[in-house]
Amino acid sequence: MTRDDCAGLDAGDVLAPLREQFDIPAGTIYLDGNSLGVLPRAAVDRVRQVVAEEWGQGLIQSWNDAGWIEQPQRVGDKIARLIGASPGEVVAADSTSLNLYKVLSVALTLMKADAPERRVIVSERDNFPTDLYIAESLARQHGFELKLVAADEIAQAVDSSVAVLMLTQVNYRTGRMHAMAEVTAAAHAAGALVIWDLCHSVGAVPVDLAASDADFAIGCGYKYLNGGPGAPAFLWLHPRHAARMDREQLWQPLAGWLGHAAPFAFTTDYRPAAGVARFVCGTPSIIALAALECGVDTVLAAEPFGGMQALRRKSIALTDLFIELVEQRCAGHGLELQSPRDPALRGSQASFLRGDGGYAIVQALIARGVIGDFRAPGLLRFGFTPLYVRFVDVWDAVEQLRQVLESAEWQQPRFQKTSAVT
Amino acid sequence: MTRDDCAGLDAGDVLAPLREQFDIPAGTIYLDGNSLGVLPRAAVDRVRQVVAEEWGQGLIQSWNDAGWIEQPQRVGDKIARLIGASPGEVVAADSTSLNLYKVLSVALTLMKADAPERRVIVSERDNFPTDLYIAESLARQHGFELKLVAADEIAQAVDSSVAVLMLTQVNYRTGRMHAMAEVTAAAHAAGALVIWDLCHSVGAVPVDLAASDADFAIGCGYKYLNGGPGAPAFLWLHPRHAARMDREQLWQPLAGWLGHAAPFAFTTDYRPAAGVARFVCGTPSIIALAALECGVDTVLAAEPFGGMQALRRKSIALTDLFIELVEQRCAGHGLELQSPRDPALRGSQASFLRGDGGYAIVQALIARGVIGDFRAPGLLRFGFTPLYVRFVDVWDAVEQLRQVLESAEWQQPRFQKTSAVT
Repeated sequence: MTRDDCAGLDAGDVLAPLREQFDIPAGTIYLDGNSLGVLPRAAVDRVRQVVAEEWGQGLIQSWNDAGWIEQPQRVGDKIARLIGASPGEVVAADSTSLNLYKVLSVALTLMKADAPERRVIVSERDNFPTDLYIAESLARQHGFELKLVAADEIAQAVDSSVAVLMLTQVNYRTGRMHAMAEVTAAAHAAGALVIWDLCHSVGAVPVDLAASDADFAIGCGYKYLNGGPGAPAFLWLHPRHAARMDREQLWQPLAGWLGHAAPFAFTTDYRPAAGVARFVCGTPSIIALAALECGVDTVLAAEPFGGMQALRRKSIALTDLFIELVEQRCAGHGLELQSPRDPALRGSQASFLRGDGGYAIVQALIARGVIGDFRAPGLLRFGFTPLYVRFVDVWDAVEQLRQVLESAEWQQPRFQKTSAVT
Repeated sequence: MTRDDCAGLDAGDVLAPLREQFDIPAGTIYLDGNSLGVLPRAAVDRVRQVVAEEWGQGLIQSWNDAGWIEQPQRVGDKIARLIGASPGEVVAADSTSLNLYKVLSVALTLMKADAPERRVIVSERDNFPTDLYIAESLARQHGFELKLVAADEIAQAVDSSVAVLMLTQVNYRTGRMHAMAEVTAAAHAAGALVIWDLCHSVGAVPVDLAASDADFAIGCGYKYLNGGPGAPAFLWLHPRHAARMDREQLWQPLAGWLGHAAPFAFTTDYRPAAGVARFVCGTPSIIALAALECGVDTVLAAEPFGGMQALRRKSIALTDLFIELVEQRCAGHGLELQSPRDPALRGSQASFLRGDGGYAIVQALIARGVIGDFRAPGLLRFGFTPLYVRFVDVWDAVEQLRQVLESAEWQQPRFQKTSAVT
């Protein structure tokens, strides 16, 4: 494999034109779309339009005239196409943490009614921390136990004491991916509900919530969806739970006015909106939702080229190539693959463990224009967004990594840790 | 009083130049800043900069390099100057509904520890609905009773059964304003904590949380702060409660990762950040916070001209003039003042009740370029933001209202109700 071979792969890539949707800084190879996706070109004009025209000129009337009021549902419907959900089943709102709080609260409420003897929430010990913090908060409030286990202990842990299994499908550190349908089926067989965090899945791997018979899902707008820093998150629940919430008039705990059945009636009593609409809480940022919509559109733009299946094929090819080249060309530098080698078990990233200097190596790489990130302790993390990462980018990134390691330039003081934010 | 007299008042208004901060559509008189503030000119460029440069070019490194990570605190510190709080006591984050959920949860938790026999939350029956919905949700969860009373029944209602008094200082319908210090002192004397919703206060009337000895406060970024549609909200708690939460390591329920003491340590266990910083939950929208900061800056720009005290004097003059002119020039059309006549008891708005046609009258006014709003049932609501509303605007608005009423043009079918969003 040579750089020319990589250029050949790019030349034959039917998805290659999708890169033109983005404004990627010159000289930058961006392998951090799993942390913050790049800027869609369309977002600059669209956000300007929302600010200068819809807000500036349309003012309060834009809630009707510009469709602001339907924005959580409209963007939700677009996200639904990426995760095997139907129109009307997804809303875009709030943050991942807040959306997890909503659905986990509901899941616990349902289980307290259906199986009050089940008092355990199971999750993975190395789930993304915010999920664990929110779960611990709810466990305290509702009198549940949060039980954290290793990935290979999950099946065994989901026993007759368990109410809810809460997992992030693709691990933020290693990229290891759970088989959603199988894990869900096993948990259902054991009598538990399943919540899926799709933060590192949506836009990265094909997700089919309906076919997986999942119960609840949430996810992030600013990673593979390219929705901008701190973009609103999303939330889905299975229609059987939505119907039950309607039938029993169940609340979600963050019962804000925009989740009311008739917010502009300004009634004293809360009456939840139908279905997933009750999961909107307060007034959402219209500007942030507009940027998110542009980001989601960049992923939907792959539909004519095979959609998520085609993106997945390219993602696997990019990631396999990166792993292969690092192991060939950076051999002897103590980089140990922490991601599954089998692409079927892996999301769209590759992580390598290094005993020391990991942070500085990433900083030295960034100084050379190759942006990955570092996750303590010791993990060098590289994400591959097939919408805009090219095969030559993979080649060039590994070449830069090789030079950083061989020159030992990462040992320079300027690359050592100076900030808490990585 | 003539239009020329109004022009004379504008000519003598030291705050008049502050209007240049805004981009108000030609031909529009905007009396709805209590619903959505107008666009600060600076926001167009600033948002473009955040999108195109900080996100587009700086990418993930902008969390450090552009100071994104400190944005909730930086914007909070600016808002603190408008509400009698100190630096480090306020964060900008999430929505008003969510922030109320956080502080009311904490207040109930504190009271369950200190006075477990107190199981009542008191609020006003015509408080803004989202506050009531959130309070009802928390009352259910924590086993409290939400008791709703009329404004003049509050003092009597706060007895030895009451844990928390939760009030919006300025009523969204009538503009009636509570005396924060007196009400707080009376509630404290009765043994209750007090939460103030400042949605219709901040940027509209001087607020001094410290001098009022309030316990908790929350408020809105998109009304008088001009932060844009669905702008992030803010949250304050008294330093005595912040110190206690630190001492006792108390959580707020929405325990997301950015409220962790060390979010980038990615630890499994939640450990709250010090003081108000623990009230940040998930990753905030950086674009929305940037727009909000521009809005807050437009209010802080009044500081050299006398700040909130000067804005308040002009607000009262504008609102008094509007009431006087409506009662003179629109007499006989069934408009009945619903706001207090005494400006000391009133925020920065004037509301009139009309038995029928209120919605259509507002629509006909909007068609003439005068934007107020309608709140069911029957309330015509006009807000006066002294940063950009002129005395001639008040004259012209009343003249248009007079013509709408005298011509009966509001009876045209096109002005009748067609949408749920008002």
